[in-house]
Formats: sequence, structure tokens, C-alpha cells
Amino acid sequence: MTAATVERARERSLLASELQDAWPVLSPEERLEGIKLLPHAEAEDLLLGLSARDQAELILSMSPTERRSWMRLLPPDDAADVIQAAPEDARETLLTLLDEPTRKDVAALLAYAEDDAGGLMNPHYARLRPEMSVDEAITYLRRQARERLETIYYLYVLDAEQRLLGVVSFRELFAAPPDKRVRDIMHTDVVTAPEEMDQEALSRLFQEHDFLAIPVLDRERHVKGIVTVDDIVDVVQEEATEDIQKIGGMEALDAPYLDVGFWAMIRKRGGWLAILFLGEMLTATAMGYFEHEIARAVVLALFVPLIISSGGNSGSQASTLVVRALALSELKLRDWWRVASREVVSGLALGTILASIGLARILVWQFAFSTYGEHYLLIALTVAGSLIGVVTWGTLAGSMLPMVLRRLGFDPASASAPFVATLVDVSGLVIYFSVASVVLRGTLL
Amino acid sequence: MTAATVERARERSLLASELQDAWPVLSPEERLEGIKLLPHAEAEDLLLGLSARDQAELILSMSPTERRSWMRLLPPDDAADVIQAAPEDARETLLTLLDEPTRKDVAALLAYAEDDAGGLMNPHYARLRPEMSVDEAITYLRRQARERLETIYYLYVLDAEQRLLGVVSFRELFAAPPDKRVRDIMHTDVVTAPEEMDQEALSRLFQEHDFLAIPVLDRERHVKGIVTVDDIVDVVQEEATEDIQKIGGMEALDAPYLDVGFWAMIRKRGGWLAILFLGEMLTATAMGYFEHEIARAVVLALFVPLIISSGGNSGSQASTLVVRALALSELKLRDWWRVASREVVSGLALGTILASIGLARILVWQFAFSTYGEHYLLIALTVAGSLIGVVTWGTLAGSMLPMVLRRLGFDPASASAPFVATLVDVSGLVIYFSVASVVLRGTLL
Repeated sequence: MTAATVERARERSLLASELQDAWPVLSPEERLEGIKLLPHAEAEDLLLGLSARDQAELILSMSPTERRSWMRLLPPDDAADVIQAAPEDARETLLTLLDEPTRKDVAALLAYAEDDAGGLMNPHYARLRPEMSVDEAITYLRRQARERLETIYYLYVLDAEQRLLGVVSFRELFAAPPDKRVRDIMHTDVVTAPEEMDQEALSRLFQEHDFLAIPVLDRERHVKGIVTVDDIVDVVQEEATEDIQKIGGMEALDAPYLDVGFWAMIRKRGGWLAILFLGEMLTATAMGYFEHEIARAVVLALFVPLIISSGGNSGSQASTLVVRALALSELKLRDWWRVASREVVSGLALGTILASIGLARILVWQFAFSTYGEHYLLIALTVAGSLIGVVTWGTLAGSMLPMVLRRLGFDPASASAPFVATLVDVSGLVIYFSVASVVLRGTLL
Repeated sequence: MTAATVERARERSLLASELQDAWPVLSPEERLEGIKLLPHAEAEDLLLGLSARDQAELILSMSPTERRSWMRLLPPDDAADVIQAAPEDARETLLTLLDEPTRKDVAALLAYAEDDAGGLMNPHYARLRPEMSVDEAITYLRRQARERLETIYYLYVLDAEQRLLGVVSFRELFAAPPDKRVRDIMHTDVVTAPEEMDQEALSRLFQEHDFLAIPVLDRERHVKGIVTVDDIVDVVQEEATEDIQKIGGMEALDAPYLDVGFWAMIRKRGGWLAILFLGEMLTATAMGYFEHEIARAVVLALFVPLIISSGGNSGSQASTLVVRALALSELKLRDWWRVASREVVSGLALGTILASIGLARILVWQFAFSTYGEHYLLIALTVAGSLIGVVTWGTLAGSMLPMVLRRLGFDPASASAPFVATLVDVSGLVIYFSVASVVLRGTLL
């Protein structure tokens, strides 16, 4: 390779990577133009690395002839994803662009829900018969390798009815004595996924076993296809994004931030915001209930935001922790008692820390500016006592609500953190004014 | 295979999967006992699927002889992770258990930071020389396959100085005419990672390119090892967990919930909680500033929690969205103006929705219970106007703060949501009471 070639290669790869970097901020027209400027092989690489949604948009913006050649470039599982990501009325057209055998494969894949194991799998995999010798198997594979296999890293051994008998890795086959039978070197304890397994469970299976591919079976143990780990990286990323957005108190966007239209965004955020607002209205009711106390001791009102936000912050810590631990299966529902007792103690400790800070602040302000009048000590006690109560309650409620949601069949991530904050705001007010009415009775109240 | 064999196989796999399920809640002693009950091959599978932290704990609880055989089972990159996860004083011992060549590999890997590409890679990979024929290459690989290679899916073509010239996939090699040269079928535009690349950037590289492995190079293009995609699944999961915990307003735990000791947990949560509490104290100062207004119109105090929580909720939605979009590189800092203008409009729309609900609520309560006295219309206007202001400000601040944090070199996930809530609480009070003093001047105030 000459220096000039290296230079040229570098220039080209710079262009491709630049286009990749700029991708999210380009308009559909600019994207199409960019792709056309690239050498064909690089354009292919770029397209294959895009999300299904971007691929669909790009392909639909092309001329009919281009469209066909790009659709045929995609492996069946990706083609199915692109068709699923396209608008309803364009799907049939895209499907007809494929060649006959791929169209059949894709149509079969489209029957699966997008986030089932069946929807992620590729129907092409390398297969062997148990009675083959190792040498025969290698020759047979060499023929299969010319087809569009997703991976030849694992070879699945099937009986005459196409049912799974075992698996042998390519390396094992390769390292085995040439005259051994496949039957004698295969593993029969294969980790498999049923076709209706949900993609989150599937990604956990991959994480437990560190395999590069897992076969998807129907009830009769027929291999329907394989899911490879590179698709799982996307699944894990997607699921985390959904959870994060739900934790942030909205519906999952299901698309990159800049790709979501204005009204869709308002719908996904406004719905939850309105629900939380309706819940939060109870704070006005609760405050109204204590209006008399506030009128007599306005100083009580000053600490309302401080106290309820402390409960909200500690509650959102606890709920975030538990939501994530549930998603990763680090926690099961039956651990609830362990979590609850642990969180109560944590809440007491955290509440005590905040109470001490609050106490110090009131005393310092009192000695410096005489802000709080003659009953400053009672006010300080009220604030400190309420903080311990509110933080402990926030921590407990925050850790238990996700488990309750899961138990009731809801997604624990759904608005847990702001939902907890709202719940804790209302009950925090009740705790605060109840403590106040006990501590301040006969003096300020 | 007889029915009885199937039955036995099923029984065994049930036991292994049961142990796997129960794993998080078992004590170290129970784990060790469980592992010993399994047939050796399954115990191996289970151990290899565990996190490095669990592997380290388990191996350290074994007798010295067992320890050695289990440590030697691990591929070098996993062995390095286990040693890194073990307590400081046990590391040297674990390292000496390895055989001489592996010890060298592992020591080299330990020199990399755990979350660099170098720390994730496996030094064993399949290599070819450019002048080999395809048939020679296959024979040569067949010999290499008996060693402990991480993967033989990609074959790296090196020159005499061990510098990377190109890559050929196993399938391509396999499908090529036997007498072609490796040089003629290899790709020279290889996607590679520098050894100091951070694991988050590396996982994006994998997601862009859908490769099963990426080679790690030093500055002279020597291949130091390869990173495989199955390790990336763990990286993506880990990074998402860290971000979620930071969004929840605490330090990342870096360990499963139940594995974190009580005091470590208090430290990770208490620190941020105290910082937020100190910030939130400004609400008491702000409220004190308006004490006079509250005393004249106690009704104003009733809506304080409602108004500041609406700002907090809309702010935490916006910050969560932007934090995640930054983490996924869907947004860059230079998009800030697009985000800001979009969020201001969203904020106005969302604020208007909440304002209408709030307005309706006050009017209904007034007509039903005459709660708010003769100036109810002015109060309703104050609340509605403040809601629009607070929600718009919360949305804008929530979307910009993560970008400001990133610009200043901090992690945008760090406590963004509760940090925004605190900021918005304080400024929300100022907005509310300012609106009130304009609208209610001459009547209630």
C-alpha cells in the first residue's frame, strides 16, 4: 500500500465519519445527498449502521430503482425492522421490492411483535446433521458460507424434522479430529429462547451467558432463527432510554429527541404533567386544611418548600434505585421486606442528617438576625422533627411504590420518581403541620 | 438420546437455572455450596456468566487449590476484571495463581484503566499473514483454534512488525477460492479503537457498525487485542445504570443495590441530598422575603407547593430528555439554540395546559364552596399566570442545565433532575410572588 493510498483511504473515511457525525442534524434531503456522495461500499456501511427509522426515511426518499437495490442489501431481520418503521401506507410497497425468498422470510418475521425474540431474529443460520463427520461438516459449511448467514460462529445440529439436537461452536468443530461425528462433539444443553420471549428477558439471557447468538425455538423445538448479540446492544440501549424517560416523568418517546414532532412531544409530556398536576392539587387542599394555622404562624409557611422537596428528593433517590434494580433483576418482588426495612433505616439516617443541617441553619439565622422570634427553638424542633418524618416516609414510599406498580402488573418505571414526589408532597404537608400542631400548641398555635 | 437422558438433562438445567435465579439473594456461603452441587461443566458456565465482582467473591471464598483451577478457567480479560474487583490485598495472590503466559497477559491488561478499551480487550485473537493462500490460512487457523482465542470470527492480517494491514471475516475466508491470497480478499478500511478510548465511546462505535469485535491498536497500529460485542452489552447496561442513578439525584452505586453496604449507601445518597437541601434552603429565604405578602393574603401560601412542583416536574422532564439525548449523541452542544427555542415553545404550551386546569379548579371550587372570597378571579389569574411562567422557565432551565454542565466539563447526568427541581423551586417562588404583587396590588396586597 503506497502512502498516497493511505492518504486517500483516510480522506474517504473522514468523509464517511463526518457524515455520520452530522447525521442527526441533517434534513432528509441533505442525508440523501450525503449518502450519494460516498463511494458505494461506504454508503452501504453507513446505511447498515443507521437505526431502522432512519433507514426507512432514507430509503423512502430515494427513486424507485435505488430503493429496490438498497432494500435488497438488508438482511431479512433488518428489512423487517425497516418495514415496521415505515409509515403504514408505504409498507406493502417496500415489501414488494424484495426478492421472492427474502420476501417470504420478512413476511414471516413481520408476524412477530417488534420487541419479541421472534421479531429480532434472523432466519438464516448455519445447520448441521448429527451423523456428519467433522470433515464433512466443514465442507458442508463452506458451501453454506456463500449464502447470507447471519453468523457461522455457532452451528446448530438439527434432526430430520428440523428440531434442535445440539450446538457446536465453529472453533470446536475446527479443532476436533476430522473423522469424529458431529453428534459426539455437540453440546446438548443449549440455551434457547422461545419465540414469544420479550426482548428485555432475552437481553438478560445474553448477559447471563455471554453467547454471541441464541437460537429461537417454537414449542416443538424447531429452530425459527437466531438472535445475535449485536442486536441486543441496541435493545439494551433502547430499554434503558425508555426507562430513563419514564423515570423523568413522561411517556417513552420511542425516537431521538430531535426527530419527535412538536405535538407528539407535547402529548407525551403533557399527559403525565397533567396527571401529576391533578395529584399535586391535593397539596392545595391539604394546605387549605391548615390555613388557620398558617394565618396564626406565617413562619410555618416559610419552610413548606424546603420540607416537601426534601421528601421528594429522598423519595426519588429510593424509587430510581429500586426501579433500576428491578429492571436488572437484581431485586425480586419477594425481597420487598428486605428493601423496606433497609430503606426505613436509611431514611432515618438521611433524615437525621438533613434535620441537623436544618436545625443549625435556624439557630445560626436566629443568633445572627433574630429572624424567628422568641419561639425559635420550638420552630427549629418542628422543622427538624418533620424532616426526619418526611425523609423517612419519602424513602419508604419511594422504594415500595415501584414494587407495588410491578405487583399490579404496571411498569415500575412509569413516572415513579415524580409520582413519588407528588405523593410525598401531599403526605409531607400533613406530617409537617401535624408535628407543628403538637410542638407549637399553646405557644404559636 | 433416551427419554430418561432428556429427563435428567432437564433436571440438571433446572437446578443450574434455579441457582442462577436465586443468586442475588444468596449469602457467599450458600453460593459456594450451590456451585459445588452442580456438575462441573454447569458450574463453569454459571461462574463465567457472573459479574466480575461476584466471581471475585466466590473465588476468594474457595480453598487455595480450587481457587487456582477456577482462576485458570478465566480468559485473560475476565481474569483481569476479577483481580480488579477483588480487595486490594488479595490481588497479588490471585495473580500468582495464573500460569506464566496468562499472568503476563493479565498484568499487561491491569495497566489499563478498567473502563478504557484497553481494559476490556482480550489479547488473544486470530491472526494471518497477507501472503498466505486461503487454503493455508484455513489450515493455520485450524491450529490456532485449539488455543484460547476469544473469537475466530474476524481474522486480522498483520505485517512482519505485527501492525494491522486488514481484516477478513471467517466467512469470507471460507467462501473464497482456495488459491487466492489473503491480501486479495482482506478489507483495508478496518474500524479500530485506540487503546485509551473510553468505554462509552467504544460502545457507540459498536452500535454504529454492528461488528462482533473491534481491534484495539496502539499509536503504531500494533494490535493489542480485540474487544468483543458481548462485553459491550455489559458496558451499555452499566453506563445506563450510572446515568439513571445520577438522574435520580445520587452518586452512581457501582454495584447491585443489595450488595452495597449501609454506610456506603448513606454516603452516596446523603452527600447529594445534603447539597440539594442546602440549595433548597434558599426557598426559605425567598419565602421569608415575601412573608409580609403571605401574612396579608394567606391564600397565596396554599398554592405554593402546587406551583413549584409543576415547575419541578416539567424541568425534570426536560433535563432527563436532554441528558439521555446527549449520552446517546443524538444531541450535540452546538444544537443548544435549537433545543432552547423548541423547549420555550413546549414550555409555553405545557404551562398553558396546566394553567387551564388550575383556572378551572379554582373557579369550580369557588362556585361550589366559595373557598377563595371576593377576589377569586384575581387569585385564579395569579395562579394561572404563574404556572405559565414557572413551567416555561422550568422547561428551559431543565433543558439548558445539562448542556451547561457538559460545557463546563461535568457529567450532564450528575443530579440534573433534582438539581433543576431545586433551582426551579427557588425561582418559581420569585415568579409566583412577583406575579401576585402585580395582579393583587390594591386588592389583597
